[in-house]
Amino acid sequence: MPAEQMIVQDLSESELLARIFPRLNHSPGILLGPGDDAALIAAPDGRTLISIDTQTQDQDFRLQWNNGYRTTGFDVGWKAAAQNLSDINAMGGTATSLVVSLTMPPSTPVEWVESFADGLTAAITALGPIDCSVAGGDLGRGREIAVTVAVVGSLAGLAPVVRSGAKPGHLLAVAGTLGRAAAGWALLESDVPLGSLSAELRALVDSQCRPLPPLAAGPAAARAGASAMLDISDGLLRDGNRLASASGVVLDFDPTALKAYAVPLEPAAALLGADAMPWVLGGGEDHGLLATFPAGVQLPEGFTAIGSVQAVVEPPGSGIRIAGQAADTVGWDHFAD
Amino acid sequence: MPAEQMIVQDLSESELLARIFPRLNHSPGILLGPGDDAALIAAPDGRTLISIDTQTQDQDFRLQWNNGYRTTGFDVGWKAAAQNLSDINAMGGTATSLVVSLTMPPSTPVEWVESFADGLTAAITALGPIDCSVAGGDLGRGREIAVTVAVVGSLAGLAPVVRSGAKPGHLLAVAGTLGRAAAGWALLESDVPLGSLSAELRALVDSQCRPLPPLAAGPAAARAGASAMLDISDGLLRDGNRLASASGVVLDFDPTALKAYAVPLEPAAALLGADAMPWVLGGGEDHGLLATFPAGVQLPEGFTAIGSVQAVVEPPGSGIRIAGQAADTVGWDHFAD
Repeated sequence: MPAEQMIVQDLSESELLARIFPRLNHSPGILLGPGDDAALIAAPDGRTLISIDTQTQDQDFRLQWNNGYRTTGFDVGWKAAAQNLSDINAMGGTATSLVVSLTMPPSTPVEWVESFADGLTAAITALGPIDCSVAGGDLGRGREIAVTVAVVGSLAGLAPVVRSGAKPGHLLAVAGTLGRAAAGWALLESDVPLGSLSAELRALVDSQCRPLPPLAAGPAAARAGASAMLDISDGLLRDGNRLASASGVVLDFDPTALKAYAVPLEPAAALLGADAMPWVLGGGEDHGLLATFPAGVQLPEGFTAIGSVQAVVEPPGSGIRIAGQAADTVGWDHFAD
Repeated sequence: MPAEQMIVQDLSESELLARIFPRLNHSPGILLGPGDDAALIAAPDGRTLISIDTQTQDQDFRLQWNNGYRTTGFDVGWKAAAQNLSDINAMGGTATSLVVSLTMPPSTPVEWVESFADGLTAAITALGPIDCSVAGGDLGRGREIAVTVAVVGSLAGLAPVVRSGAKPGHLLAVAGTLGRAAAGWALLESDVPLGSLSAELRALVDSQCRPLPPLAAGPAAARAGASAMLDISDGLLRDGNRLASASGVVLDFDPTALKAYAVPLEPAAALLGADAMPWVLGGGEDHGLLATFPAGVQLPEGFTAIGSVQAVVEPPGSGIRIAGQAADTVGWDHFAD
């Protein structure tokens, strides 16, 4: 056995694929899987949800972080799957398959690619869309690592939950975590060595590298009659403003409810000399859900009430308020102890 | 108005999207289009075909070619659409939608992105899948331009035409052109200035930059009972060998039929001091189809007979023969006048 590490350019494309395929799971909804020009997927209700997302090295992730952590292929595969599965979740659907394009330098270690495939499979399996698997893909060369995943999913006969259906008087709720991935990013970018972190803080790093979107919550919200929903991928306030704008409403957040998400982040904030609340309000990569429900609906499992939907009051401005105050006039001090 | 060119980093993502959306067509099969976390597409027969492909700058195309040609956004959009539409065609299906991820440096001119969107729309419209449009996408930053398209399509109740169904005695046929894109690539890489090319030679360059896959031919082949089919994306012999291997057969090409594809390329070959036949046998980016049909089937419109399917004879070797000789022992001289 050679001591040196095997890299992608040492293998033909078919040799590399032969190392990837055994690492993928196989679901019965894939009527025809990898090996032809296209895959064939079951779409039992006669419709299919579809979304696409790209992660690019040094834009969406660093291979080497300031605190010493090295992003693994497993991380990149997990995160690529998770953020795409979340897009289907946010419509109230369940993912049925992924197609994956991996572009990378020829010097990429083969082990990195195998680990990437393992990460895809682990995310699909751990996060829960049981009948989902990788149906096909594409391998290519580039100067940097870039992963694009397209995901298809099923609404199982339900109407899609769009961004534009929130109405004044509806409840505002969140599923999943807020701010954990942002706290993890701050730790990764800090000078605090990875090895010195407590298990609790290390778990925040994991939230950035391998997020845990609440994949049962989206279909549950659709069944419960959610009026609007989206994936919190760019931050609670920014994504909330998108929902408010699409629906023509204002979202009024309850500061006490928000504070509950900041408390578990305070040890990390203290370590870094930072505030936890901006992570809660501005951090997106937890891939939680923000949803609205008609008044009187019992929130489905996994959702926590976080505010209410209000009518727009002139003059127009941000679609976000916190305790009735326009959020762009609310400083972080509002949340100080 | 500033004289300098507007670049991508001068605009927010929503401003850039507002310049892209009006340039896209809209088909009735898109039940819910861009603007939510996922799009919703009709899948009338309860199944959906899906495929994904990436084109990366300096790997799949050059922005600036040796002969002076500059690849336009329009070219990249057209080619990205065309090669993905071809993957659905090769299964016997019709594309219903594309989702498009565009990664680019912040210095990319906005006009390039607008032209890219125009190219996507023009390819969809010109190549013919009438009920197809862009359903969604993703914009991101990277060091180089990379475009990933995922395409979904419908088989309209037909069985998919896979690579593995060819049987000895079946007819071998091709739809579309062979070698034109490869000849165009050779012209682009040559020292012959673009401006000096005749209209006929310039059309070969266009075949490389804006290929014309025969999109009616795939569904026609499926309806006619094609036994195996694939997209010729890597070259006739290489892709033919994949079909032969998947089917457990040998493909025997008729040199006279192959020669007919080389003749129109001979002016380009003469200009460059090259041979035309390697372009026919090894060039892939025309995105034609290679298909097999049971004996006695009348070839559907658009297909030309190019050989026959034979049983494997020991010892095993290449799955490709030309006039009965193993192709790897057939020199290009075989085709010399």
